[in-house]
Amino acid sequence: MGKSKIEEIRSLAEALRGARVVHINSTAFGGGVTEILHALIPLMRDVGLDAEWQLIEGSDEFFRVTKAMHNALHGADIEITAEMRDIYLRYNELNAQTFEGDYDFVIVHDPQPAALLHSHGRSGGKRWLWRCHIDTSTPNEAAWKFLRPYLEPYDVRIFHRREYAGDLTSSPMAVIPPSIDPLSPKNTPMSLDESKAIMARFGIDVERPLLTQVSRFDPWKDPLGVIDAYRLVKKQVPGVQLALIASMALDDPEGWIFYERVVRHAGEDFDIHVLHNFHGVGNVEVNAFQSGSDVIIQKSLREGFGLVVSEAMWKGRPVIGGNVGGIPLQIIDRQNGFLVESVEECAEMALFLLRQPELAQEMGARAREHVRENFVITRHLKDYLKLFLSMSVSAPLPLSGRSTTSKG
Amino acid sequence: MGKSKIEEIRSLAEALRGARVVHINSTAFGGGVTEILHALIPLMRDVGLDAEWQLIEGSDEFFRVTKAMHNALHGADIEITAEMRDIYLRYNELNAQTFEGDYDFVIVHDPQPAALLHSHGRSGGKRWLWRCHIDTSTPNEAAWKFLRPYLEPYDVRIFHRREYAGDLTSSPMAVIPPSIDPLSPKNTPMSLDESKAIMARFGIDVERPLLTQVSRFDPWKDPLGVIDAYRLVKKQVPGVQLALIASMALDDPEGWIFYERVVRHAGEDFDIHVLHNFHGVGNVEVNAFQSGSDVIIQKSLREGFGLVVSEAMWKGRPVIGGNVGGIPLQIIDRQNGFLVESVEECAEMALFLLRQPELAQEMGARAREHVRENFVITRHLKDYLKLFLSMSVSAPLPLSGRSTTSKG
Repeated sequence: MGKSKIEEIRSLAEALRGARVVHINSTAFGGGVTEILHALIPLMRDVGLDAEWQLIEGSDEFFRVTKAMHNALHGADIEITAEMRDIYLRYNELNAQTFEGDYDFVIVHDPQPAALLHSHGRSGGKRWLWRCHIDTSTPNEAAWKFLRPYLEPYDVRIFHRREYAGDLTSSPMAVIPPSIDPLSPKNTPMSLDESKAIMARFGIDVERPLLTQVSRFDPWKDPLGVIDAYRLVKKQVPGVQLALIASMALDDPEGWIFYERVVRHAGEDFDIHVLHNFHGVGNVEVNAFQSGSDVIIQKSLREGFGLVVSEAMWKGRPVIGGNVGGIPLQIIDRQNGFLVESVEECAEMALFLLRQPELAQEMGARAREHVRENFVITRHLKDYLKLFLSMSVSAPLPLSGRSTTSKG
Repeated sequence: MGKSKIEEIRSLAEALRGARVVHINSTAFGGGVTEILHALIPLMRDVGLDAEWQLIEGSDEFFRVTKAMHNALHGADIEITAEMRDIYLRYNELNAQTFEGDYDFVIVHDPQPAALLHSHGRSGGKRWLWRCHIDTSTPNEAAWKFLRPYLEPYDVRIFHRREYAGDLTSSPMAVIPPSIDPLSPKNTPMSLDESKAIMARFGIDVERPLLTQVSRFDPWKDPLGVIDAYRLVKKQVPGVQLALIASMALDDPEGWIFYERVVRHAGEDFDIHVLHNFHGVGNVEVNAFQSGSDVIIQKSLREGFGLVVSEAMWKGRPVIGGNVGGIPLQIIDRQNGFLVESVEECAEMALFLLRQPELAQEMGARAREHVRENFVITRHLKDYLKLFLSMSVSAPLPLSGRSTTSKG
């Protein structure tokens, strides 16, 4: 990060010194949202904000409902029944009863706690922000209609992309893309030797070319299409291998069923490696595969944002990505990677990168720079600071009634 | 159970009334040993013994070592290093320090706590019994040599089959086969309608024939051979389906790897259903598949005992089993099931049972009777009572110094 950028953040933060900020979401571990909060909240504190993190509580029945809502907001054809709505509201009300504090900015993440403002009222927070991490551009109508009234009272709704705001664009809205944390074990520099040693432990022949996709086993990530693309490449490059890497959750039966579907499609071709956390693949191993693979693929058919693309680009790899969600914000086609729309195109670009390693290297260097400019956590912090300041200005904000210097 | 059998147990138990018994093993949940203890200990208490259950404690390193020892005792080519021996003894000594009580019979189950007597000395127990639940007929020599000195001080060593005692046959030995609990949810009667409704939930077409094997995904259970046998059957009976059902453990990476191997062999033949607990298959579902399948297979290449065969036979199903371990004690070839030695034989017998449903029914009825006579928990209890009494007689046992009536 350049000095001027640090200066810019410091000066924005100065005006917000001591502001009390709380992030509220439903889980402390697992998933992109928590990764971002684990990095962002300490940074907010570093620059002088009084930032905290609160979790809402819920039981299995609540999380079953919110998972269904999540999928429905992504566009899945799931009915949100009266019973589900009751469960959703009941747990939001329970959490509203225990919510206390006196904050300048309350940032509520994702649908799980979205009804908190409705249930609790504005007391305890001067400004209320709803932060959406999912692609709500073509939601299931009924689910959106149910959730919408709980989103409307917020002072601002924050989306990854303008397109995700749907019919909420008339209300105050902000666009803040997500970001990666270059200091996390998933993203710190790793030598090629170390990367190869780790990959070899999982049965990869590091002398032969490797294609890798890191993503949940989920139809929207199209791992079956990735296998088909690999098979086309293998006709030309018989030594090629494929690694499909995922994080599996114990409480996600659908994930296990689709994992099995992927393994069945792989069949007895043992150059296809299907790996997940139960095999011991964690953040460091993902780093190794992203750093050491010849080609990284993210052939999604639908994406919330697809930040895993930036993770791989950060390691200097050109990525072949589906032209959906936030992927085209990250991949500039034919500059720092490739946007593809089909199995055949994906295979063609993989072959190109395997056959042109020097060009691949150059594209990878541009990929890393693009991420440095646009998708690292400091940019994310800056966007929040700017948004906080804009909200103070448009409606003068009594910063907790305290002088901004009293706490410095 | 007939009245005369109940009388026999009551009269045996009368002479042991108030005897203090403790079962010691390493885990309270999962696996056949704990299933038996959950049924046996309450029964011992019912008939007047003062029976308890104690668990030894260990960390991951200890259980990694004991798992390796378990596999080595089964015959696997695994080195038991000096470090592993140290870890094994260290945890046995730690557990010996906390072991207290004053028991008439201490029953130590399996290798994990086997060194307890060595580490603790005989105080706290008048008679010490080692109960082995694994097939130690052809153990890895080095592992057996390591464990042997810790087994020798026991008053008696109990095996499922005489053949499992190896070179320990010169010392006092008892043979007690394992047993099923007819009252557990896995074994209580289930109507065919209920069974079909449950199987349908897992994608089985209940109008078409179904072969089922219930067993861990482990090379010794030969699920790949079962798939091959199913494929031979399918040539003659195109509508046939196969269910492979297992319980998976979180802490068993090898299990996950072999599960994947099985799914790869199944490939994209969706008449093969590979199911496990993470899909929601529990005891009741296993009951449904055992009760409702046309043919039950247990094509093991090696078995501790293979009690799952009795579970299926108890539901009136003739079972096709590998001719190994305790399976030939359960299956009387061509009377109440079939013993097979190859994929081809397995397929042939499955075809026979599919084509002769009435004969299958008759064999199944005989199978159930054979289990009722030999492999239910009350027979297991009776064997223990007889053993306890024989140990009291051969060396008069001061039953805790209390009169046998003082507690009645």
